[in-house]
Amino acid sequence: MDYNKMALEMHKKLVGKISVTSKAPVNNKDDLSTAYTPGVAEPCRVIHEKPETVYDYTAKSNLIAVVSDGSAVLGLGDIGAAASIPVMEGKCVLFKEFGNVDAFPICLDTKDVDEIVRTVQLMEPVFGGINLEDIAAPRCFEIEEKLKKVTNIPIFHDDQHGTAVVTTAAIINALKITGKKFEDVKAVINGSGAAGNSIAKLLLSMGIKDIFMCDRKGIIYKDREGLDKYKKELSEITNNENRIGSLADAMSGADIFIGVSAPGIVSKEMVASMNEKAIVLPMANPVPEIMPDLAIEAGAMVVGTGRSDFPNQVNNVLAFPGIFRGALDVRASDINEEMKMAAAKALADSVGDKLAVDFILPKAFDEGYSEKVAEAVKKAAIDSGVARI
Amino acid sequence: MDYNKMALEMHKKLVGKISVTSKAPVNNKDDLSTAYTPGVAEPCRVIHEKPETVYDYTAKSNLIAVVSDGSAVLGLGDIGAAASIPVMEGKCVLFKEFGNVDAFPICLDTKDVDEIVRTVQLMEPVFGGINLEDIAAPRCFEIEEKLKKVTNIPIFHDDQHGTAVVTTAAIINALKITGKKFEDVKAVINGSGAAGNSIAKLLLSMGIKDIFMCDRKGIIYKDREGLDKYKKELSEITNNENRIGSLADAMSGADIFIGVSAPGIVSKEMVASMNEKAIVLPMANPVPEIMPDLAIEAGAMVVGTGRSDFPNQVNNVLAFPGIFRGALDVRASDINEEMKMAAAKALADSVGDKLAVDFILPKAFDEGYSEKVAEAVKKAAIDSGVARI
Repeated sequence: MDYNKMALEMHKKLVGKISVTSKAPVNNKDDLSTAYTPGVAEPCRVIHEKPETVYDYTAKSNLIAVVSDGSAVLGLGDIGAAASIPVMEGKCVLFKEFGNVDAFPICLDTKDVDEIVRTVQLMEPVFGGINLEDIAAPRCFEIEEKLKKVTNIPIFHDDQHGTAVVTTAAIINALKITGKKFEDVKAVINGSGAAGNSIAKLLLSMGIKDIFMCDRKGIIYKDREGLDKYKKELSEITNNENRIGSLADAMSGADIFIGVSAPGIVSKEMVASMNEKAIVLPMANPVPEIMPDLAIEAGAMVVGTGRSDFPNQVNNVLAFPGIFRGALDVRASDINEEMKMAAAKALADSVGDKLAVDFILPKAFDEGYSEKVAEAVKKAAIDSGVARI
Repeated sequence: MDYNKMALEMHKKLVGKISVTSKAPVNNKDDLSTAYTPGVAEPCRVIHEKPETVYDYTAKSNLIAVVSDGSAVLGLGDIGAAASIPVMEGKCVLFKEFGNVDAFPICLDTKDVDEIVRTVQLMEPVFGGINLEDIAAPRCFEIEEKLKKVTNIPIFHDDQHGTAVVTTAAIINALKITGKKFEDVKAVINGSGAAGNSIAKLLLSMGIKDIFMCDRKGIIYKDREGLDKYKKELSEITNNENRIGSLADAMSGADIFIGVSAPGIVSKEMVASMNEKAIVLPMANPVPEIMPDLAIEAGAMVVGTGRSDFPNQVNNVLAFPGIFRGALDVRASDINEEMKMAAAKALADSVGDKLAVDFILPKAFDEGYSEKVAEAVKKAAIDSGVARI
């Protein structure tokens, strides 16, 4: 299939992928007086008196913004706001199709952290949540942190947390297959940007005791020179033994390899050096850190990639629509660690008795997983005190 | 009809009036690979290379933002961003129903001119046009002026220009009925805020030679103390004889009265003091400056109000959907005076041989007028050099 050609034709034929439609009938004068003046003044008055009713009378309760500055788009990099719109519209389409969430693309023509934060803050009244997308690290961390402080709606950077949730779900099921436990395993994450950072934290929340974080310079350790604020934080919560060395050094004796980095940088030897029944998730796209057949030849027991043409696709669409569905359903003020853990567990559980070495995650078009994720997220929001309904 | 009650029930039942929907099919893996990764990268790449193709491959070409700070909402005044959402969603519904324009509400939690300008500028990539709505004067003038400078898409403040277009259309037809000409008549506009300002300018463009602008302090004249920048400008292009006096002084001998002010402030005596075959448009809502029956008793020949329960409703919905339809169809970079004049003329023409003293404008649900407005706007955009297709 030539998806490039098909995509170009489809986008041109439809002239974009989203549309804003009316839910209100406007067929006669009475309809007009109800949807618009004079009747519309009444919900305005009520919201003005009781601000929380904005969720009752406007689209806010089912509406999120997909916000990007176009600085880290797919494999394309920093292509800017306008060129990023097809991806953001695509994300909106997936939110709708897989979560019945109304999502609208907000592509911002700036890379200034404070401008992005302020702009999103100013639009907060309209939206029930914000999905940050394709914003380069470490700026994405700062934007998310600041937005969480100044807004009262969930702020969720999918490249970080969506990836972390699905990866964690994959590992929950892979551990079942290998008969290992979070408490006992050692994991290596290669790539310490947006995704790697959040994966590490979610795995730690799940009970993993030791993780080696790697970047282009090798293992991240305390006092390594030139660490930014975010890698410094990682150096303090990972690498208990403060090992210094290369990715190969990290992988030796590890139970889990997670790649969110670059094509082909893991060799068969490196996988062979891992613990027995190794779990290998080389998720670089479109070319993984190591091809699945090679990883298996080298002794890996469970392998998953980012690609749909191999088994066990670690695909964010398995998580983000259900996560926001659940958050919106209870008017959550945040999407917190508890909700992410709940999402990962529900997604892993949804595989049920289909669980197998080549089926640790549902496929995108399988039925029911998104609803299960939503339900679990909803419950976790209530239990952790961020639900408002 | 209790529109307040109906509106509250309808808004709660539908939970807002707009929805974001997908135009792209997502039924299987191939669809996903076309609407999203990997295929979506191709339109991104093309837009990155040729920025103008953003109109070909994204929703931009049919998408506008309805932007408000909630500072001058209907008769409710400064109710803030959140409470203004029902009105802005209503506007979006009307854009869709009457112009097939995708419109999205952006309600901003600030009243700072530069913040509003910058926020809209940052979102420019996504939108093909901006409809400013319910922003208090004189801030609305400044915001519009600045946005026109820094963006490359049409900026249109409907409270100013939509009102001006429909009012001008009403006057074109009223003049036909009274057998008078723009060049020969004297007009009085009571209310020198957003609407009054734009009405004055459009009538001057149409050839009226003399207008008296009035505000709470009476006629605006050169060197009147305390005039802001915008009223100062009005003082220079109106009131040729530099008359000083009250609204009653202005109306004496005038051919046209236009009220965008306050209920009941025009008396029968004031209408009786006008020229014969007077045109009286008291558009204050819901209570006009003078009730139509009184105006007719006092000798007015043609009367129109803002209300749907009297003949000749001067209703913005007659103009804004068609104006943006036309502007978007040719990817206009601006909605200029030529386009507004063309819209007014087309709207007046659309009445055709139904023209009568109590039928100077089509009714909202009449067929065809919006298309005629769009067609005329399109042509005027091309002729005036702001079309880009």
